[in-house]
Amino acid sequence: MAGVDASESIHPFIPKDLILPDYVPIILSQSTILGVYGSASLLVVFFVWILAGRFPKISKTDKILMCWWVFTGLTHMILEGYFVFTPEFFKQKNPTYLAEVWKEYSKGDSRYVGRDSAVIAVEGITAVLEGPACILAAYAIATRKSYSHLLQIAIALGQLYGTAVYFITSYLEGDNFAASAYYYYFYYVIMNSFWVWIPSLIVIRSWKKICAAVRAQEQKKTKTR
Amino acid sequence: MAGVDASESIHPFIPKDLILPDYVPIILSQSTILGVYGSASLLVVFFVWILAGRFPKISKTDKILMCWWVFTGLTHMILEGYFVFTPEFFKQKNPTYLAEVWKEYSKGDSRYVGRDSAVIAVEGITAVLEGPACILAAYAIATRKSYSHLLQIAIALGQLYGTAVYFITSYLEGDNFAASAYYYYFYYVIMNSFWVWIPSLIVIRSWKKICAAVRAQEQKKTKTR
Repeated sequence: MAGVDASESIHPFIPKDLILPDYVPIILSQSTILGVYGSASLLVVFFVWILAGRFPKISKTDKILMCWWVFTGLTHMILEGYFVFTPEFFKQKNPTYLAEVWKEYSKGDSRYVGRDSAVIAVEGITAVLEGPACILAAYAIATRKSYSHLLQIAIALGQLYGTAVYFITSYLEGDNFAASAYYYYFYYVIMNSFWVWIPSLIVIRSWKKICAAVRAQEQKKTKTR
Repeated sequence: MAGVDASESIHPFIPKDLILPDYVPIILSQSTILGVYGSASLLVVFFVWILAGRFPKISKTDKILMCWWVFTGLTHMILEGYFVFTPEFFKQKNPTYLAEVWKEYSKGDSRYVGRDSAVIAVEGITAVLEGPACILAAYAIATRKSYSHLLQIAIALGQLYGTAVYFITSYLEGDNFAASAYYYYFYYVIMNSFWVWIPSLIVIRSWKKICAAVRAQEQKKTKTR
């Protein structure tokens, strides 16, 4: 390992031979990092819930969905957008909160700190295209646009596709990117699972709604003839 | 390069330092490989066109779309399915036609012969999920199912997402996987472009159709009240 000095391999990530020149250790605690994300998310949900209530004829399910879309949209744009466009986040001498988030998450999947190209591609599409589309989905639900269910299906399928590429590439490369079983299950499995089962439920719900509308429209056409 | 004998690096792909132990050179000519794929595809299109004509009230556009869905579905399942589940295709002593296809295509993108994990992940999703869904889409068009446009949007968006991951990962890794400019533009750019502009047109068309149906259904509801 000539040319690699000791400082380059001192980091908490797996695989151990991952080379991270100028890596700056995490300063914030896990509880601070998760606490800020959790509190900010709760604030967003609270704000969207209040705002959604001001629109006419909004069902409880629609209000919950609006909260989800704004929460996931902001996560995509702010958290994931930061990751995509800040390749050197792990080198910051005075790390920002978002840099700390990605160093912490990399304990569950070191491909983030290692800048794996499949991860960057998926996160790039998610941050740039799906993030803004999520906010549009919340707006479409509130204002009862005709494309509301269609847009929700399109984004949810994109989230499912991205998560599939994310898990499959890790599996193909040996599935050995977590610092411990704890981080593997907590960060990599459980946290990502929300972007599997929630989009799945949304696709099923909106799929049924659109099919019902199309069927009703066809029957109307047949009657008119 | 101890332990690497000369035979391991003799192949027509770029980068030159890609190690392919037991690589067996291409036997079939480019015209044979493309000719067989082209002829088989024309046969499929001809057969589907005749079959589609036997369904009642099928427009010309629907017949063209049915041909496209069966063609792309069979390409996904047979060609791409073979690639995904035959990791050692380039080592076959008596290579099958499909092995020759992928050795030839690898001149445009050596990540295929090099088993890049992002390429395998995208091709795996395409072959296993999207391939059969394409055949279902052709059936749904023929039998005028209420989910027809929705399914077409879902598959087309998946094809667009896959192509995006495919191009972005290549770009992030230096975009240096083609044996020459000829193969880069012919195989990598032009051939893949069909899976960009055709799915895009399908998404736009089906999106409009569904929105129109949903709007008509909403107006009907309002009138009934």
